[in-house]
Amino acid sequence: TYGSLNSQKDNAILVFHALTGDQYVSGTNPVTKKDGWWSYAVGPSKAIDTNKYFVICANVIGGCMGSFGPSDLDPESGNILGTNFPVITINDMVNAQYNLLDHFGIDKLFSVAGGSMGGMQVLQFISNFPDKSRTVIPIATTSSHSAQNIALNELGRQAIMADSNWKDGDYSSNNSNPSKGLAVARMAAHITYLSKKGLQEKFGRKLQEREDLKFGFDADFQIESYLRYQGSVFVDRFDANSYLYITRAMDYFDLAKQFNGNLSDAFKLTKAKFFIISFTSDWLYPTQENKDIVIALNSIGADVGFVEIETDKGHDSFLLEVPDFLNTLKNFLDKSYEEH
Amino acid sequence: TYGSLNSQKDNAILVFHALTGDQYVSGTNPVTKKDGWWSYAVGPSKAIDTNKYFVICANVIGGCMGSFGPSDLDPESGNILGTNFPVITINDMVNAQYNLLDHFGIDKLFSVAGGSMGGMQVLQFISNFPDKSRTVIPIATTSSHSAQNIALNELGRQAIMADSNWKDGDYSSNNSNPSKGLAVARMAAHITYLSKKGLQEKFGRKLQEREDLKFGFDADFQIESYLRYQGSVFVDRFDANSYLYITRAMDYFDLAKQFNGNLSDAFKLTKAKFFIISFTSDWLYPTQENKDIVIALNSIGADVGFVEIETDKGHDSFLLEVPDFLNTLKNFLDKSYEEH
Repeated sequence: TYGSLNSQKDNAILVFHALTGDQYVSGTNPVTKKDGWWSYAVGPSKAIDTNKYFVICANVIGGCMGSFGPSDLDPESGNILGTNFPVITINDMVNAQYNLLDHFGIDKLFSVAGGSMGGMQVLQFISNFPDKSRTVIPIATTSSHSAQNIALNELGRQAIMADSNWKDGDYSSNNSNPSKGLAVARMAAHITYLSKKGLQEKFGRKLQEREDLKFGFDADFQIESYLRYQGSVFVDRFDANSYLYITRAMDYFDLAKQFNGNLSDAFKLTKAKFFIISFTSDWLYPTQENKDIVIALNSIGADVGFVEIETDKGHDSFLLEVPDFLNTLKNFLDKSYEEH
Repeated sequence: TYGSLNSQKDNAILVFHALTGDQYVSGTNPVTKKDGWWSYAVGPSKAIDTNKYFVICANVIGGCMGSFGPSDLDPESGNILGTNFPVITINDMVNAQYNLLDHFGIDKLFSVAGGSMGGMQVLQFISNFPDKSRTVIPIATTSSHSAQNIALNELGRQAIMADSNWKDGDYSSNNSNPSKGLAVARMAAHITYLSKKGLQEKFGRKLQEREDLKFGFDADFQIESYLRYQGSVFVDRFDANSYLYITRAMDYFDLAKQFNGNLSDAFKLTKAKFFIISFTSDWLYPTQENKDIVIALNSIGADVGFVEIETDKGHDSFLLEVPDFLNTLKNFLDKSYEEH
């Protein structure tokens, strides 16, 4: 948690993290020693102002940063669970996190917020618990994983499973680690988090610490070196089986299907105020998929705002210093809180 | 070759294949037993009409379907070359294929044509040999590999190299094959060949021969099953080291750089008639990158036509049955041939 719960207990924001995120939203992540994943957005006087709001975040079920997941021990056998861990869903994640409200004695959250897979949890949460939040902020997300996104997740899973060190998920008992496969999965994901234009502007065809091409398979280009680095640092902090389970949960997410194909029905019991944010250069969860949620909400007369932020930073925009986004988020929260 | 070279020897079209293509343009590929990769475009009465034109295609240097590549023996040592094969470029490819003109006694081609990496060869060919073709047809291509495309190729290479069976490229001598890594590389590439919309329309969230989700890591969705199939059939026909070398050649391609950053200079010595074709849903070599070639040609008053074909089939459009594309290609060729 960040900030303080006030005496009325009406200033709590439950933040949901994305695929490779964790509970370390802001400040220094004690595991990676880097800034928390939402440090640009969450903190004193920031968009999600911890002088004002009480921010709660928990590692998702299936994760490897504190929650119970496939790298944990089976309480009965004492063995590492691995692929004996059950397949989980976004629904399981939010049902687990719902219990935090009781823990803190919170009757109603001020907001639920999150980007990417965090946004899926936002949508599932308000659908399951329509009275439990005053405001709802899904960011750069979708109500149903597209074929392309299932394909990209499957690519990551196949990269992990192709690593002979994966050993059908039983690598820990075998003192091995499918780190090469996991690194490839991370590289693939990283390409999708950035926009084509953003990559071109940041890297283009710039060479990595050399005057000219070396005509070999070393990293000649900076983009190659960058991807290899992203892959290599990721394997130090993330469990390969957790990657399999959490991507599977994303692929299975289809909120409309839970309501016989009618997405509006997912929201018909809530009076919460929605605010949906997308980014122009996000090709993983493009504006249209965010707008589909807006349309479903409008069709039942829900209280819904929507903004598309102009940026070249791709899907990662919600994690980065994008002033239009951060200002918009702050304004929505602070005005909504005053209206109380 | 397909069709017959006429007595004037003025009806020859040199076709260049893409990354995983080969010399089997049309008819049945004797290795895969499937239709040749450009069967929709090349054949009697088709866009590239083999009743009229003499079509030549050779496997690129570095390839594994007949040309000399890393799976071949070192003539001196008698060992398989593997990564002792030299790194090659698009320039090397077209310089090798140029020799076919002498072989056939052709003074001037009627056309050079190709899509994707084939288009890069088209551009390099006419730059190297400005008098050797009357018409020039680059399709769905670029004059310089973008950061995103380098990233995607690097992903494929890292997937191959992550496979413990790759053995630093010396797998053949070790009776192994990095087939899992190569399959992952192919899956990654396949995702990029199709458009998001095309994938959604073809696969969406359709399940693979089952009534409901199985909650496991088998291929629940058709798109997963499709990708796994594409990966598995590819490894039967393609050499992993060839994949490394050919993707590297693509990444190194930067025609403007060969002319001190001025792309127009690559074409200033030719009087050939250019026709450039792009596809609306191609996100690998988007219209803008094709237009950049048109702009460079226009700036020196070259004879250049350009068309963007509306289609949801993504980069693969140039290989598929896209009537607008095939009709446009046929009209350009037949009218240009009549003008002779």
